Amino acid sequence: MTPAPAAPASAAARPAQLTVLDLTATSIDLTRQICDMESVSGNETALADAIVAALAGLDHLEIIRDGDTVVARTNLGRAQRVVIAGHIDTVPLNDNLPTRYETIDGTEYLWGRGTVDMKAGVAVQLKLAAELTDPGVDVTWMWYDHEEVSDDLNGLGRLARNRPDLFAGDFAILGEPTRSQVEGGCNGNLRVEIRTFGLRSHSARSWVGENAIHKAAPILNILAGYEAREVEVEGLVYREGLNAVGITGGVAGNIIPDECMVHVNYRFAPSRSGDEAVAHLRELFAGYDLTVVDRAEGARPGLDAPLAREFLAAVGGVATPKYGWTDVARFSALGVPAVNYGPGDPLKAHADDERVAVAEITACEKGLRDWLSASVR
Amino acid sequence: MTPAPAAPASAAARPAQLTVLDLTATSIDLTRQICDMESVSGNETALADAIVAALAGLDHLEIIRDGDTVVARTNLGRAQRVVIAGHIDTVPLNDNLPTRYETIDGTEYLWGRGTVDMKAGVAVQLKLAAELTDPGVDVTWMWYDHEEVSDDLNGLGRLARNRPDLFAGDFAILGEPTRSQVEGGCNGNLRVEIRTFGLRSHSARSWVGENAIHKAAPILNILAGYEAREVEVEGLVYREGLNAVGITGGVAGNIIPDECMVHVNYRFAPSRSGDEAVAHLRELFAGYDLTVVDRAEGARPGLDAPLAREFLAAVGGVATPKYGWTDVARFSALGVPAVNYGPGDPLKAHADDERVAVAEITACEKGLRDWLSASVR
Repeated sequence: MTPAPAAPASAAARPAQLTVLDLTATSIDLTRQICDMESVSGNETALADAIVAALAGLDHLEIIRDGDTVVARTNLGRAQRVVIAGHIDTVPLNDNLPTRYETIDGTEYLWGRGTVDMKAGVAVQLKLAAELTDPGVDVTWMWYDHEEVSDDLNGLGRLARNRPDLFAGDFAILGEPTRSQVEGGCNGNLRVEIRTFGLRSHSARSWVGENAIHKAAPILNILAGYEAREVEVEGLVYREGLNAVGITGGVAGNIIPDECMVHVNYRFAPSRSGDEAVAHLRELFAGYDLTVVDRAEGARPGLDAPLAREFLAAVGGVATPKYGWTDVARFSALGVPAVNYGPGDPLKAHADDERVAVAEITACEKGLRDWLSASVR
Repeated sequence: MTPAPAAPASAAARPAQLTVLDLTATSIDLTRQICDMESVSGNETALADAIVAALAGLDHLEIIRDGDTVVARTNLGRAQRVVIAGHIDTVPLNDNLPTRYETIDGTEYLWGRGTVDMKAGVAVQLKLAAELTDPGVDVTWMWYDHEEVSDDLNGLGRLARNRPDLFAGDFAILGEPTRSQVEGGCNGNLRVEIRTFGLRSHSARSWVGENAIHKAAPILNILAGYEAREVEVEGLVYREGLNAVGITGGVAGNIIPDECMVHVNYRFAPSRSGDEAVAHLRELFAGYDLTVVDRAEGARPGLDAPLAREFLAAVGGVATPKYGWTDVARFSALGVPAVNYGPGDPLKAHADDERVAVAEITACEKGLRDWLSASVR
């Protein structure tokens, strides 16, 4: 783990191994601090520890911990409650830490893993959680682990199973990258493994065997020729995608392979259920062995909720669809309308040159701060 | 390692960890002894040790060791010398050791890894090396390691580099499985890696990336549609083969892959040189990134050599082509005509149900014994 820069003076009093977050820093500097704490999925404990330590002693927040997920909430007796959440893990590094600042065509960026997906959003949330002691609505902040991996590991999903009571709310905001614009709903996400089978033989007498890799050619042809749909849902147009994300086959350099597996990822519009998505793939790949390995429902935009309309009016701009699957679907499934709102260009999420325009961090902080600070509702 | 059965009485005098081979057993029992000593490529030392120990003290043989390759030769001053060779390694196990006898449709088989490829041939050679103290030609016996893996590891190739003098001879016989019939020459063997490249992106926004696995579809189409040639060389018809033996691609379940690799194996008739084989694949896969990873020349039948004609007449039957690449090509390259002759159905080599008809072991022993025991030539 790279130590966070700019540890405050009180650092000497804490255990040596605990990195100290300075929540009084700007949200830009705070983004840098938590990005430089590597927290690839499965390695979030140090960051979760640091978040708990940074919030400890703030009288307006009740802190609840579940594994490496941290919940902090106000209990001010407001008429309405908003849940604001963000994941603290990232995809694996690719030589893109520690962070650095860079200026491209006059725009200043913070570069590095996690800057977009989604530690800038988390930094804004942490800062506001500490500073907004008297918001106009009660707020439940959630920072959770294991978002970038298989659905069954997702920290927000685990929290929903362990403490469904914490999800009570009138509206939810997820800090996934949206360039600090409101993005509604999300596509569903399905992963399947499609297998072909053959018969092993020595490759010197290949006519005795049956080549399972050759049999996968039609699967790749279907994928390469597939035209993904664009689907309008409640006024927003969702773009789908169907892709091989992995392929594997082969025993040895002199053996005709008896099995080949194509790992396929289908991102589907929220007008389609998970069951319908599976049925679509079963039809498309009829006759092949197909196993569902991961499935997450999409979420409709949810922009007709009163607090959603009010929030959209407060932060301005035009709502657009969210292409990527996000945990808004989890709130949606629990009956809580939810939108995505966070700094960063989603096209840079998971990219080797992941980088966030620092102005978007500031804009997101201002949007959330102004709306949450408005008079009691 | 499974201990060999039927250790002779002198076993107690030897180091406990050394398995003792009984060369006075029948060639069938001896096959079983050495098959039950697992010797997957890279793990031949114990078997090589046992061979050296079994031959030690036989006055008519000079023993030379090079790594896990053992050479034993007579020096009787005969006018002609024959080299007889076999590899002592096998492909990996697949729950097919220890060996067992089984009878199918009235034919008795010895079942298990190595019975066909090619410990039955090695067993016959070991027994004859020990017993034929006064053959009609001088004989150089060679038992070598690492035949079933990459060409650069091959023990016979290493011996040819370290001790080319040992390869002097008028004719060579390789004990690869031929159902105890003479098979001439062998196909060449080429392995290449063909790569496609794309652009990584998050799979939720796949239109931003370029899918390298989808780009591999035309490669699989070429392979699946390829019609392998049958080529006549010196009267024997060689059958070729072009196959994917491996495929790999993918980064993670939510990332558009930027690279895919298809591992291709081309078995080509001995009328074609290795260079010509590479040129053929470069033409077939024009425009793709292609890297040669393993290449071995084929061998013409070599049946016009006087000793070859005499051997064929002595053991009877009709010569046929050898499809698989074998080390006869190494003798061929050194100017020594060479044929394949050994027990076992080559279609069962590397198969999970690898098994040799025990009658073929006896036939091979008789064929070699009779020919080698004939009057001094």
